[in-house]
Amino acid sequence: MTPEFDLIRRHFVRPMRAAALGPGDDCAVVAPSPGHELAITSDMLVAGTHFLPDTDPRRLGWKALAVNLSDVAAMGAVPRWVTLALSLPQIDHDWLAAFAAGFFDCADTFGVDLIGGDTTRGPLNLCVTAFGEVAAGRAIRRSGARVGDGIWVSGQPGRAALGLADLLGKVRLHGSAHDDCVAALEEPQPRVALGAALQGLATAMIDVSDGLLADLGHIAHASGLGAVVDDAALPWAPLHAACTDGKAVRDALLAGGDDYELLFCAPPEADDALAALSMRLALPLTRIGAMQSGDGVRLVDAAGAELPVGRRGYDHFA
Amino acid sequence: MTPEFDLIRRHFVRPMRAAALGPGDDCAVVAPSPGHELAITSDMLVAGTHFLPDTDPRRLGWKALAVNLSDVAAMGAVPRWVTLALSLPQIDHDWLAAFAAGFFDCADTFGVDLIGGDTTRGPLNLCVTAFGEVAAGRAIRRSGARVGDGIWVSGQPGRAALGLADLLGKVRLHGSAHDDCVAALEEPQPRVALGAALQGLATAMIDVSDGLLADLGHIAHASGLGAVVDDAALPWAPLHAACTDGKAVRDALLAGGDDYELLFCAPPEADDALAALSMRLALPLTRIGAMQSGDGVRLVDAAGAELPVGRRGYDHFA
Repeated sequence: MTPEFDLIRRHFVRPMRAAALGPGDDCAVVAPSPGHELAITSDMLVAGTHFLPDTDPRRLGWKALAVNLSDVAAMGAVPRWVTLALSLPQIDHDWLAAFAAGFFDCADTFGVDLIGGDTTRGPLNLCVTAFGEVAAGRAIRRSGARVGDGIWVSGQPGRAALGLADLLGKVRLHGSAHDDCVAALEEPQPRVALGAALQGLATAMIDVSDGLLADLGHIAHASGLGAVVDDAALPWAPLHAACTDGKAVRDALLAGGDDYELLFCAPPEADDALAALSMRLALPLTRIGAMQSGDGVRLVDAAGAELPVGRRGYDHFA
Repeated sequence: MTPEFDLIRRHFVRPMRAAALGPGDDCAVVAPSPGHELAITSDMLVAGTHFLPDTDPRRLGWKALAVNLSDVAAMGAVPRWVTLALSLPQIDHDWLAAFAAGFFDCADTFGVDLIGGDTTRGPLNLCVTAFGEVAAGRAIRRSGARVGDGIWVSGQPGRAALGLADLLGKVRLHGSAHDDCVAALEEPQPRVALGAALQGLATAMIDVSDGLLADLGHIAHASGLGAVVDDAALPWAPLHAACTDGKAVRDALLAGGDDYELLFCAPPEADDALAALSMRLALPLTRIGAMQSGDGVRLVDAAGAELPVGRRGYDHFA
């Protein structure tokens, strides 16, 4: 047995829930449910670009999967299967065991099977491809928003950006806020239950990975509409409680990515259902604005006057 | 528009053949055909490990897809969709245009749609995930070989290894043999038509990526059998014509990977159908041995005496 096969067997082969054929052949084989389509996403995470080189490998394993499940959730799909390709500078079984523990913790939490992948030698790089099921024709795209739809965001976005700023020494968060924001960065919670539950409620959806305003811009552009965000309606309170640097808080909420909250549009008649859903999932859902005709994303104060916006989001090649 | 989105739009967005939703949303969405399962494979290619850093980007684009289509073919499945994740040290539009040209040349040749992916900054790394369709329950696994099955290989395996040896200065191939072997290395032909046509004929199959004897070992192990290879039956002639170094030729054919020929088992009653298939596809199919009870892979001479074998294949972490 070569080291590569031993590595896969030791760390990455687990019993399958729902795959016809898992790791160990040329391909995995899966049987999608009748009447369903597959939602498919790939994300590549590179050391130094997407995570700090000394990131806890258990949390890195969780995050590598979580960011992909978030993309599946953002289509209103239910994640089912995932493949993992790993490039490793060397075989470090302690590191791999911790990485696998975090990866499978996330997989088990959300009911996903690892069905295949690849390992090779090279600079540290993780490529995850995830597959979700969605009833045929029911995927929630970015392009479905309509004039008058409310704009909603889940959870408390901006915490991951504050956590990163703290790790980089740019802000100073105290005790529990530090732990909370670093956990949001390193162990994000993909909104899997919310995404699936928004079937029939949300008209358009995206996950906030690049920044709230930047990602809202993708919905506006794809839907051929403009978006107006009410500054006072944004969920500022948890961030101000965590951090006294007002500029850092504004930057984190408006332009911070990496929280993987869901940003979606829904008509006003969905308000009651969304309130009930928020209760059921014990997850804040905040209405932060509305879609209008026009284009672009504007941030306005309580009087409707436009506010300046600095950075809108993350540019992978900036 | 950020450079990342511009990069994707410029080089990687093409009309879809058969996807419900292609690049540009959180996920791609595909609709598998009724009664079919999906065969899924991921391969990661790293500069310096899998290809020489100065490899022609057009050929690299072809190969990154071809090696994945080969895995799909090795299940007897028909490739349909593919995702591409790219880590790039910088944005070089000339390099990307050439890479995309090769990638789409392969995609068009085999009728595959690029449905999504990711681009990021980092050491050069290509991760491709491919999806094929196969009638439910009909995937050709490594584990189905039976005692008495013939062992067959397609094409002229070993040429890619000779091409690499030539590029590394270890052997000297003349003119057309050089071009032929380097093309086998850099622009391998996945045996897509053969793989699908072996439905109902082959009992077990794998593609030769790590080395003929090593990959045959995977079939033997998965099937709980032994494999006996008849040295005299191997397709030596094209390699001896290309290269006068007898040891290099032996090593290339027995242990050379990267040709992506199909290695499969089939019962003797399939011989006529295989001969007809070879004619129809204009592709040599050579019977090189037989499956027996026992385990392991043995190489024997015409008298049945066991021959020594040096290296059996490629170890990704050697």
